[in-house]
Amino acid sequence: MATFGRTFVKYRSVLLGVAAGSSVLGYGVYYKTVNVVQARSIHTEQQNVDVSKFMAEPITVVDKLQKQDDMKKRMELYILQLQADICRRFENLEQSKKFQVERWERKEGGGGISCILQDGSVFEKAGVNISVVTGELPPEAVKQMKSRGKNIGEGKLPFFAAGISSVIHPRNPMVPTVHFNYRYFEIDEGNGKTTWWFGGGTDLTPYYLDKEDVVHFHKTLKEACDKHDKKHYIDFKKWCDDYFFVTHRGERRGVGGIFFDDLDKPSQEDCFKFIQSCGNAIMPSYEPIVEKHKNENFGYKERRWQLLRRGRYVEFNLVYDRGTKFGLYTPGARIESILMSLPLTARWEYMHTPKEGSKEMELMDVLKNPKDWV
Amino acid sequence: MATFGRTFVKYRSVLLGVAAGSSVLGYGVYYKTVNVVQARSIHTEQQNVDVSKFMAEPITVVDKLQKQDDMKKRMELYILQLQADICRRFENLEQSKKFQVERWERKEGGGGISCILQDGSVFEKAGVNISVVTGELPPEAVKQMKSRGKNIGEGKLPFFAAGISSVIHPRNPMVPTVHFNYRYFEIDEGNGKTTWWFGGGTDLTPYYLDKEDVVHFHKTLKEACDKHDKKHYIDFKKWCDDYFFVTHRGERRGVGGIFFDDLDKPSQEDCFKFIQSCGNAIMPSYEPIVEKHKNENFGYKERRWQLLRRGRYVEFNLVYDRGTKFGLYTPGARIESILMSLPLTARWEYMHTPKEGSKEMELMDVLKNPKDWV
Repeated sequence: MATFGRTFVKYRSVLLGVAAGSSVLGYGVYYKTVNVVQARSIHTEQQNVDVSKFMAEPITVVDKLQKQDDMKKRMELYILQLQADICRRFENLEQSKKFQVERWERKEGGGGISCILQDGSVFEKAGVNISVVTGELPPEAVKQMKSRGKNIGEGKLPFFAAGISSVIHPRNPMVPTVHFNYRYFEIDEGNGKTTWWFGGGTDLTPYYLDKEDVVHFHKTLKEACDKHDKKHYIDFKKWCDDYFFVTHRGERRGVGGIFFDDLDKPSQEDCFKFIQSCGNAIMPSYEPIVEKHKNENFGYKERRWQLLRRGRYVEFNLVYDRGTKFGLYTPGARIESILMSLPLTARWEYMHTPKEGSKEMELMDVLKNPKDWV
Repeated sequence: MATFGRTFVKYRSVLLGVAAGSSVLGYGVYYKTVNVVQARSIHTEQQNVDVSKFMAEPITVVDKLQKQDDMKKRMELYILQLQADICRRFENLEQSKKFQVERWERKEGGGGISCILQDGSVFEKAGVNISVVTGELPPEAVKQMKSRGKNIGEGKLPFFAAGISSVIHPRNPMVPTVHFNYRYFEIDEGNGKTTWWFGGGTDLTPYYLDKEDVVHFHKTLKEACDKHDKKHYIDFKKWCDDYFFVTHRGERRGVGGIFFDDLDKPSQEDCFKFIQSCGNAIMPSYEPIVEKHKNENFGYKERRWQLLRRGRYVEFNLVYDRGTKFGLYTPGARIESILMSLPLTARWEYMHTPKEGSKEMELMDVLKNPKDWV
């Protein structure tokens, strides 16, 4: 069963043959840009950024990006770099396969780069996506933001959103699934007034509990947080436990991590530095765990349990996850990028309950009663 | 792959050893009643109903049921009979396994009988559930009903709901999945005023399109409808196509059938007769399709496609289905009975699209453009 996917799934890629850098395409139309990123560099205050190292051309036209000098530019460049770094490190762990890259554009403004590695020997399904989107806020989004306490105006509000989002489902049940998402949001209220904030988080979903792994994961995130504010880890760890709660099962999706939204203090510069610390902590928090377990033995019993837990992952994402729901209800959203978070395979058995004292029950215990790990 | 489930899934049944007929247990606590149904008969206007033929003891205490003479009694007895009839006919088709029966009671009033056959050779996961529930309407439900045009009062409204609900996922990809649900709802508004209605439907989800099957299925449902009102099939077929729409995919879940709600005309007696015609048409509409295809050859390609389509089934049920969502958000609901509708296995591949001119694409075409079949 462990190699089930590999035996018959041929990867199907749709290559429309449209060259990178062409003008805006209809929404939902994407094109491959692998190996066609031009060698150029973009100057920032700190450094010259080599565009050719990205997974695809930036979403904002390079000449335009060159001339900008704001958080929009800095965030886009940061997530482009982070995506490329993470994808290459996952490819090093995987060896057998490379990420499939789709750069897509959005009729209403902006676009994204979706990188998916499917049916590898280490990673069963791994997606690392970025999007840089502009447009006018839908009334539904304005309502949601106001209900969250955002002091924004009425009418047509132009917005900018840039984020990186990823779910990594390994093949070996001894390797946990990881999810992360970091984003910057800006609303132009007119008359030079801008409302902005950052949000994000990283969280771990093991199938079998290795306490050492969980401590390492939380410790790495805590260290990233502590450099900025000693309260961050405490607050954002709790927020994560509360957010990833599958209410109808009375259990968390995994062993948590950090989760936050609406971060706009003490300053934009400080927030951006914090986001970078979090982004840069992703691989150090997760890579050693993959290395440690990726070649461990497992059998039907462990695979079955992994698939059952992946069923719960699907339940959380489709029933509760705000980002997924928002995406599914947004006309013209790129569904394939949103639902790349779903595992390759999931399973639902009627009334399955692990045995008392089993390793499976040990996991259930921490999912029902979240612990302090550091 | 076709026998994947069978190789390692041992059926796990939780038997609490509580005898049938004991007093009301805590919600979520269930007990087996297989083979312990007492041989008694209940008298109705039309016949003596043999209780021992049911899958478990009726939900309403038999002595109390004996004394009743109303639609509550008639509907409970009808769904008990229908459940038993359907389960036995599925067991005849299956041969290798029997339904696992759980009779559960609800702290707030009423309970249900869940019959699940999992990991059989013909049926990968088949659930036929009934529930007979009493209590006070939650404010959320009152709001929802009022928004649908129900002229009901305020405050504490005692209700009664009795229904049968089923999803059958066969193992062979050539055999379609079927779903049905028929229910009676009654609200006691005080001062002898009662508001009641029926709802339900039966719909088919094939993995490969066999037009003859779909015509047979729709024709059988149409004949059941036509006996009561020539407009029913036309209206309820359209309602079904509209309801089972996976908006974010732009496709229907399957090839439809009938779907209706709030049926309270021309009279309660007529509506009940119509519900019985629909209920009695379930097996005639579906059984010959199972018989025809259950031993057909299939390979990895067909199994993979079936699992991908089951992923879409999960998407519909968790994202859109009103019944499922209502259940998941209701505190104390029996989650295992609600989510028995999910398939044993489902699959999500990034950007999977069937080839032009393939059998898979032929199905997609009717899911995107619903047809008239009779």
